[in-house]
Amino acid sequence: MPSYKAPLRDIQFVTNDLLKFTEHYQNLNKDVGLDQSMQWAIIEEAAKFSEHVISPLNAVADQHGCQWSADGVTTPPGFKAAYQQYCEGGWPSLAMPEEYGGQGLPESMNVIVSELVCSASVAWSGYPGLREGAIKTLVSYGTEELKNTFLPNLVSGKWTGTMCLTESHCGTDLGQLKTKATPVANDEYILSGTKIFISCGEHDMAENIVHIVLARLPGAPEGTSGISLFVVPKFLVTEEGKIGARNKVGCGSIEHKMGVHGFVTCVMNFDGAKGYLIGQPNKGLEAMFTFMNSARLTTALQGLVHSEVAYQGAVPYAKERLAMRSLSGVKNPEGPADPIIVHPDVRRMLLTIKSLAEGFRAFAYYVAQQLDIAELGQSEQQRHHAKQLLALLTPICKGFMTELGCEAAHHGVQVFGGHGYIREWGMEQNQRDSRISTLYEGTTGIQALDLIGRKVMGSKGSLLTNFTDIVLEFCESHQSTENMLEFIGPLKQSTHDWLELANTIGKSAGADADELGAASVDFLMFSGYTVLAYFWARMALVAFDKQKQGAQTHDRDFYNSKINTARFYFQRILPRTATLKLTIQSGAQNLMAMDTEQF
Amino acid sequence: MPSYKAPLRDIQFVTNDLLKFTEHYQNLNKDVGLDQSMQWAIIEEAAKFSEHVISPLNAVADQHGCQWSADGVTTPPGFKAAYQQYCEGGWPSLAMPEEYGGQGLPESMNVIVSELVCSASVAWSGYPGLREGAIKTLVSYGTEELKNTFLPNLVSGKWTGTMCLTESHCGTDLGQLKTKATPVANDEYILSGTKIFISCGEHDMAENIVHIVLARLPGAPEGTSGISLFVVPKFLVTEEGKIGARNKVGCGSIEHKMGVHGFVTCVMNFDGAKGYLIGQPNKGLEAMFTFMNSARLTTALQGLVHSEVAYQGAVPYAKERLAMRSLSGVKNPEGPADPIIVHPDVRRMLLTIKSLAEGFRAFAYYVAQQLDIAELGQSEQQRHHAKQLLALLTPICKGFMTELGCEAAHHGVQVFGGHGYIREWGMEQNQRDSRISTLYEGTTGIQALDLIGRKVMGSKGSLLTNFTDIVLEFCESHQSTENMLEFIGPLKQSTHDWLELANTIGKSAGADADELGAASVDFLMFSGYTVLAYFWARMALVAFDKQKQGAQTHDRDFYNSKINTARFYFQRILPRTATLKLTIQSGAQNLMAMDTEQF
Repeated sequence: MPSYKAPLRDIQFVTNDLLKFTEHYQNLNKDVGLDQSMQWAIIEEAAKFSEHVISPLNAVADQHGCQWSADGVTTPPGFKAAYQQYCEGGWPSLAMPEEYGGQGLPESMNVIVSELVCSASVAWSGYPGLREGAIKTLVSYGTEELKNTFLPNLVSGKWTGTMCLTESHCGTDLGQLKTKATPVANDEYILSGTKIFISCGEHDMAENIVHIVLARLPGAPEGTSGISLFVVPKFLVTEEGKIGARNKVGCGSIEHKMGVHGFVTCVMNFDGAKGYLIGQPNKGLEAMFTFMNSARLTTALQGLVHSEVAYQGAVPYAKERLAMRSLSGVKNPEGPADPIIVHPDVRRMLLTIKSLAEGFRAFAYYVAQQLDIAELGQSEQQRHHAKQLLALLTPICKGFMTELGCEAAHHGVQVFGGHGYIREWGMEQNQRDSRISTLYEGTTGIQALDLIGRKVMGSKGSLLTNFTDIVLEFCESHQSTENMLEFIGPLKQSTHDWLELANTIGKSAGADADELGAASVDFLMFSGYTVLAYFWARMALVAFDKQKQGAQTHDRDFYNSKINTARFYFQRILPRTATLKLTIQSGAQNLMAMDTEQF
Repeated sequence: MPSYKAPLRDIQFVTNDLLKFTEHYQNLNKDVGLDQSMQWAIIEEAAKFSEHVISPLNAVADQHGCQWSADGVTTPPGFKAAYQQYCEGGWPSLAMPEEYGGQGLPESMNVIVSELVCSASVAWSGYPGLREGAIKTLVSYGTEELKNTFLPNLVSGKWTGTMCLTESHCGTDLGQLKTKATPVANDEYILSGTKIFISCGEHDMAENIVHIVLARLPGAPEGTSGISLFVVPKFLVTEEGKIGARNKVGCGSIEHKMGVHGFVTCVMNFDGAKGYLIGQPNKGLEAMFTFMNSARLTTALQGLVHSEVAYQGAVPYAKERLAMRSLSGVKNPEGPADPIIVHPDVRRMLLTIKSLAEGFRAFAYYVAQQLDIAELGQSEQQRHHAKQLLALLTPICKGFMTELGCEAAHHGVQVFGGHGYIREWGMEQNQRDSRISTLYEGTTGIQALDLIGRKVMGSKGSLLTNFTDIVLEFCESHQSTENMLEFIGPLKQSTHDWLELANTIGKSAGADADELGAASVDFLMFSGYTVLAYFWARMALVAFDKQKQGAQTHDRDFYNSKINTARFYFQRILPRTATLKLTIQSGAQNLMAMDTEQF
């Protein structure tokens, strides 16, 4: 069974050398107290906690799953104790507002910690993770009374939270939802309806669960403009802030899923449950979307996580497993066969996983920095620019990273041959766990429509050029830099193609709106490959610089590995854009010509 | 939960219109008695059996799995009864030799039946399936006595069989195997050792299990040239042909797998088990490989099966599930939203699955015809030509179809959104079940090396031109055929690229053998996409012809659908070759440059 080891060397490379986190923190509009040693103290502690406390629970949780009874849901062995330890360590409040007991650190620090915890067990990490959406909703839209009632315990982790959106007939299309909220008195409402796919809707890890619920007020307009937001606690809270009576919300059943068995998914019945309005009536959906960027980044991280787990599993196996001889000559003459890492195709799989995992880390941490700047940038212009970047990059990050996280997990199984298919090695669990990531928090198709429709077309291309300007400026600066030619040429080309494709799609969509949808996912993937090429080019540049500065022996290996992986990415992964260009250009006709009956 | 419906209309199209099975059977060197109505009688009966008897067991089997105890293995509820019914129906003996009680039908008929049964439950289909390898081994290499002892009951299905190859330290690289066979007397041997991953090694469905076992004789040479083949029954057989004493072979444990839970995978302990030599000492591995083609085709079918199952699940859901409005205008004004099949990206996924499932059927049935001709062709030249085609097409069929079967299963989940991830709809089971197909019966990497190394390079390209001649002749014949231009141009181009890439790889491999491995999987996939383009062009041609002949209304929809799907394939799937060409040409350096320590 694999045990997770935090990839500290690579995190150090990305935070220190590539993205210069210390400078980044110094440039925020408040003193966040994160010099390099402080950053590293947090990261190392999170690494230890993830490796020693969370990682050992992961396989067990997959086998046990969660158990439902009419009295509630029991989480897998060890989950509750680990959560207590997590709360005692102060982790839940890391990036939470200081006025409610949080530590007020920037979101980026939370993203790094989330990567570590989630890599150790994506199932476990969901419980504290879901809480964050509830907190952000209350912070942004709750009344003072609601904030004081719920936030301190949510921030400390003593209580957890959920987001209750989906109903059986609608997930993406929330305009169809039917749950009702009837006003009674004093801002109190009675909620009735059934929600499905409620992550962490019921469990035994915390003393209370705070549900954020989308529902309709009486006489509300149909569709998305008639949805309001409510907070509905599992246990009502007394005036003294203590746990009061059980509210009329319960878990009717739990789902049997392909993976993340330790992460409970509930059907939640609201049978006249007491709730409180958050924000304006009928403005619930808008409120939900304001913090979509950070929620989607957290899901995007799973693409990184499943790639990292696949890599950590597959590399040692490929080094140890002996099968066949290298075609270019025996490499392990003492043994009965060569380790399979000598075979080019095994390396192709390992390098695919590696180039994704490390590329994703750079991409995700960069986006995390933009989250910081959007909130804490020194000037309005900086904050605006970061928000613009987030608007463009978030759907790419979520859609692209999770799709390829699934691919990486598939390769992770493949490297093991038949052994990959059995429970023992953890690779099949990684693949099963990865599969949810392209579905929840907006499917890949939804991310893709958001990108091409709302973001690129909606801004008349300005959100796109915001980012491509950065990339092209980088290309400009380094086209004569030693060793960089092999990266700069293709990156520039891909960026120009990206702009041109957006243009082409825009034109054809003017005549037929289905052209947008027809190009959407391929455009999202094209965007992702180009963005990752930018980060790989930047990583290669840093590695070349470090080598020139005379790196230590051990570090030389590290930087060589970076440069080789960058080359692999440019020669073996980026060329996927060639196909995507053709399929995007092929237009909507090949999808729309067929009558529904002909399917 | 999905219930399987045999795609009879499409099978009819492929067998009657595309591949002209009736003519094919008439051209064999014996009267196989398969006129169209006889073919259809068999196919319809197999369809009924698959739909009504096997399909209902599939989801239940996934949940129950197989239960191990020291006394043996219990298969999922209903498996044993269904197997009895299958035997009573005479299915096990369909394509088996008449002298041992078989019906002597050509292999292709068995392939069609296998598709149906396997689509209904890939787990269940393994039990009769594994028996076939054991039968072929005995038919080809057994002594008369062994044949008479084992074949009649294997052929009737009363007994099942296994192939015991893998050991914990070696699967692909069988030269490392350690199981020992010590001669005792009268062609009897005592076998000792442990085999793993033995499919159907122990179960309760048949009264005896006949293991074909690879082992080493005392003093045998090391490596693959010291492996012999033995038959080791679970129960010894008395001189009267009855079940005798229990042999010393037992199932030590069973594997916990990602999927195919109903298909038991055993650790088999041979603790001084009595066995009988099959064929020549030390020639066991060669013997095994003689019928690899048909075994690999059976596994390849799983690519077809998982695509078909994904399609049958996803299409009705996409027609019923209401979410959002079509960007090009409301399509379902009466309802609260449009069915998701109006959205271009949903269609992209459905058409990807459809173009694979139907393309694979054409490809697999064509290969099945070659199996018939290789055995029963009228002239030595015909038989030789078919064997040559099989040599080339088998690894493509196995590697390409199973890789894309996994992709199709992934899309099948994706169309359902979050609902795809839960057990209820069967899509996640389909994806879990599909994952084994690229691993067993030779991983994709092994198929790819077989293709580029042994087949293409080993024949100096002649095996490849054997097939490309057929394709190019087709292109030649139809370049002026009405409507066919859009298919013939790209098909011809792709075929020329295919030949050129083989040439390029051959040249670079002359300087560095790792170039073979570096190109191998991408070359296999390139080959697959080109082969499938050939079959899609042929299917489009047939559909155009049928339309010209004036098809019935219902048939017009069918043929339109074929033509639209062919277009989709050429415009959206075949362009994947553009990337593969680039990655093949990128060479081995980007894979081999990195030191093992740098991973």
